[in-house]
Amino acid sequence: SDSYSLLILPGDGIGREVMAEVRKVIDWLGANRGLTFRVEEGLVGGASYDAHGTPLTDEVMARAQAVDAVLLGAVGGPAYDDLDFSVKPERGLLRLRKEMDLFANLRPAQCFDALADFSSLKREVVAGLDILIVRELTSGVYFGEPRGIHADDNNPDNEGGRVGVNTQRYTSGEIRRVARAAFELAKKRGNRVCSMEKANVMESGILWREEVQWVHDNEYPEVELSHMYADNGAMQLVRRPQQFDVIVTDNLFGDILSDAAAMLTGSLGMLPSASLGAPMANGRPKALYEPVHGSAPDIAGQGKANPIACILSFAMCLRYSFDRAAEADAIEAAVERVLADGVRTADLMGPDGGTAVTTGQMGDRIVAAL
Amino acid sequence: SDSYSLLILPGDGIGREVMAEVRKVIDWLGANRGLTFRVEEGLVGGASYDAHGTPLTDEVMARAQAVDAVLLGAVGGPAYDDLDFSVKPERGLLRLRKEMDLFANLRPAQCFDALADFSSLKREVVAGLDILIVRELTSGVYFGEPRGIHADDNNPDNEGGRVGVNTQRYTSGEIRRVARAAFELAKKRGNRVCSMEKANVMESGILWREEVQWVHDNEYPEVELSHMYADNGAMQLVRRPQQFDVIVTDNLFGDILSDAAAMLTGSLGMLPSASLGAPMANGRPKALYEPVHGSAPDIAGQGKANPIACILSFAMCLRYSFDRAAEADAIEAAVERVLADGVRTADLMGPDGGTAVTTGQMGDRIVAAL
Ligand SMILES: CC(C)[C@H](C(=O)O)[C@@H](O)C(=O)O
Ligand SMILES: CC(C)[C@H](C(=O)O)[C@@H](O)C(=O)O
Repeated sequence: SDSYSLLILPGDGIGREVMAEVRKVIDWLGANRGLTFRVEEGLVGGASYDAHGTPLTDEVMARAQAVDAVLLGAVGGPAYDDLDFSVKPERGLLRLRKEMDLFANLRPAQCFDALADFSSLKREVVAGLDILIVRELTSGVYFGEPRGIHADDNNPDNEGGRVGVNTQRYTSGEIRRVARAAFELAKKRGNRVCSMEKANVMESGILWREEVQWVHDNEYPEVELSHMYADNGAMQLVRRPQQFDVIVTDNLFGDILSDAAAMLTGSLGMLPSASLGAPMANGRPKALYEPVHGSAPDIAGQGKANPIACILSFAMCLRYSFDRAAEADAIEAAVERVLADGVRTADLMGPDGGTAVTTGQMGDRIVAAL
Repeated sequence: SDSYSLLILPGDGIGREVMAEVRKVIDWLGANRGLTFRVEEGLVGGASYDAHGTPLTDEVMARAQAVDAVLLGAVGGPAYDDLDFSVKPERGLLRLRKEMDLFANLRPAQCFDALADFSSLKREVVAGLDILIVRELTSGVYFGEPRGIHADDNNPDNEGGRVGVNTQRYTSGEIRRVARAAFELAKKRGNRVCSMEKANVMESGILWREEVQWVHDNEYPEVELSHMYADNGAMQLVRRPQQFDVIVTDNLFGDILSDAAAMLTGSLGMLPSASLGAPMANGRPKALYEPVHGSAPDIAGQGKANPIACILSFAMCLRYSFDRAAEADAIEAAVERVLADGVRTADLMGPDGGTAVTTGQMGDRIVAAL
C-alpha cells in the first residue's frame, strides 16, 4: 500500500477543531482503503507565536518542505491584532507560501444544491455554480520590494509626515507558470479561462495580459481565453457568475475576487483551497491545503465550527497530491449526502431554525456516509 | 440669478447620447428655476485621440481647471484597445483626476425600490440599500512611481525576460484628507464609516488604517469607525450590504469594491458619481461628475442607453458644487416617479418583457416629471 507523509498545522481558533475532524477521515481511509498516512503535527500562526515568538519556526518550515503535503487549519485572532507586522500570524502563512513556492492557489466556488438558499443571491443565479479561481500566490504586491512605512518629515505638503509603500512586481515567468496551471485545469473542466487584471491603468496588468495570451497562443490554443478588467470581473461575478469556468488572476485581485466568489455560494464554511508549487523529486507537487475560512475567534472552542471546508481541502489533497481521485470523489459525495440528509452545523441553519449538530457530530456523519 | 459654468465632456460611445439628455434637464432648470448655466463642450478619450492624437489636450485640461464643474460621459471603446498605454482613452480621465486633484470619489450604491427585482441578489438583501463608497482617486497604485515594463534578460529564472512594476504609495496627508471627506459625509447620513485595506499584508494598508483612525480620534470621535480587510469587505458587500453606511478605501480597492457594490443594485445604468477636490477661490470644490457605467460600445448609437446615471450625476453636481439641494432632490424625485410609472430603458427590462423607451424618451419623461 502507498504511504503518504502529511504535516498538519491546525493553527488558531477553529482551525484546531476542524482539523480534528479531518483526522477522523484520515483514520477511516487507513482502516478501510489501506491508505497509510504518516502524520506529523506542528504549530503555526498565533499558536506558534505564543510558544516561540514567531508565527513559523525554521524547524516547522523545514518539515513543511520535506513532507508530501501540508494541511493547514487557520491562523490569527484578536489577541494578535496589535503585534508588529513581522510577527503577525499571517506571516506564517505567507512564509509557507513563499518558501514552498506555492504559486497556484486553487479556490473552487461551488454551490451545493442543498445550500443554494443560503446565498444572498437568487437561487437561479447560483444553483449549480461551479467556478474555479486560480490565484497567483507567491508574488505581486504581497511580496514586492521596496515596501514599508517611512518618515517624510521634510515634505511640508504631507500632513502627518509619513509614507507607506508597497510594490506590485511580476516577472513574465511568474505569470506564465500560473497561466499554465489555469489552462491545464480548464482542460479538465469547461475548457474556458478568463484572465483578470487592470491593464487599463497598470503596466503590471499589461504584462499579465500579454503573457497569459502568449501561453494561450503558443501552448493552449484549444482552450478558450478571454480577458476582463478586474473591476468588471467583480461586477460580473455578482451579476452572472455562471458565465465563468476558470478565472486566473494575480495575488491581490485573487484575494478579493475569490472572497466575493466564495460568498456567492452562501456557505463560506464549505469552501476548500489548494496551493500548489512545482513538482518535487517524487513527482508530487509541493502542496498546502487549507479551508478558505479563517480562525473565527467568535465561535472558537464552542463546537460550532463547520469542518466541511477543511475536510474538502483534504479531498483536494487526495486528488492533487496523491492522485487518489476515487477517494476524493467519495469524500465529496459523502459531504453531499450528509447535506442532502439535512445535517447542518450552526452556520448552515436557515431562518426556520432546526437543530444544529456540533463540529464533531458533522465529522462523524461524514465518516459514516463514506 | 446665479450663474454656473460647466464643461461638458461627452467622450465616447453612449457618453454622447446620455449627455444629450442632461442638456434637457439643464435647459429645464434655466427656463423654470432661473438657473443660468454657461455650458461649454470639449473632447475627451477616444474622441479627443481621433481629433488630436491625445486623450486630453492641454487646452481642454485648462478649461476643466477654470470652470465650476466638469460633467463627463464615458471614455473608451474597442477601437482604442490596441493603442499604446500613454494615449489610451482612460488616460484622459486619469489626467483630469490627477491634475484637478480630485481626491474624493463618491459612489453611492442605492437600490431603487422599483428596480429591486433586477438585482441578482434577493430582494430582501438589497431593497432600500443606500451605501456610499468614498474612494481615494488621485494616488495609490494608479499613480505611484516607479512603474513600467522592463527587460529582465539577464535573469535565467525569468522565462519571457520581462518585469512589470507598479508602486502603491500613500502619504499620511493623502489618507487624512479623504478620511475627512468620508467622516463629513457620514455625519449627514448614518454617522458610520467603515475603512477597508489589507493591513495584514501591506504596509501601505497599515498606514491607511492608522491615519484614518487618527482623523477619527482627533477630529470625528462622534462618528462610528470600523476597519475591515478588503477581502472580507468584498464578502460582506455580497453577504449583507445593508450593514454599511459610508465605506472609505483606496484607489484600487475602491475601483473593485464600488463596482461590486454597484452591481448589487442590479442597475448599473442608474448609478452616478462625484469626484471632488479642494475648494477653489469661489469656495466651490474642484469637481467632476460622471456616470459609473462605461461607454458601452455594444449598444452605442442605438438609442438604447439609459441616461439616468448621467442625469443623477448632474443632480450630484447641483448638490455638491452649487448647493442646490432643492433642485437635486427634485431631479432624484422625478427619476423615482418615472421608474415607479414603469418607464424603462432596454437595460431595465425584466424577463417578462414590455416595451423599452429610447434614451431620448427617458430624458423627456424625466423632464416632464420635474
Ligand atoms: C490571511 C491573509 C494573509 C490571506 C491573504 O490575504 O492572502 C487570506 O486573506 C487568504 O486569502 O488566504
Ligand atoms: C476607466 C478606468 C481608468 C476607471 C478606473 O479604473 O478608475 C474606471 O474603472 C472607473 O472606476 O472610473
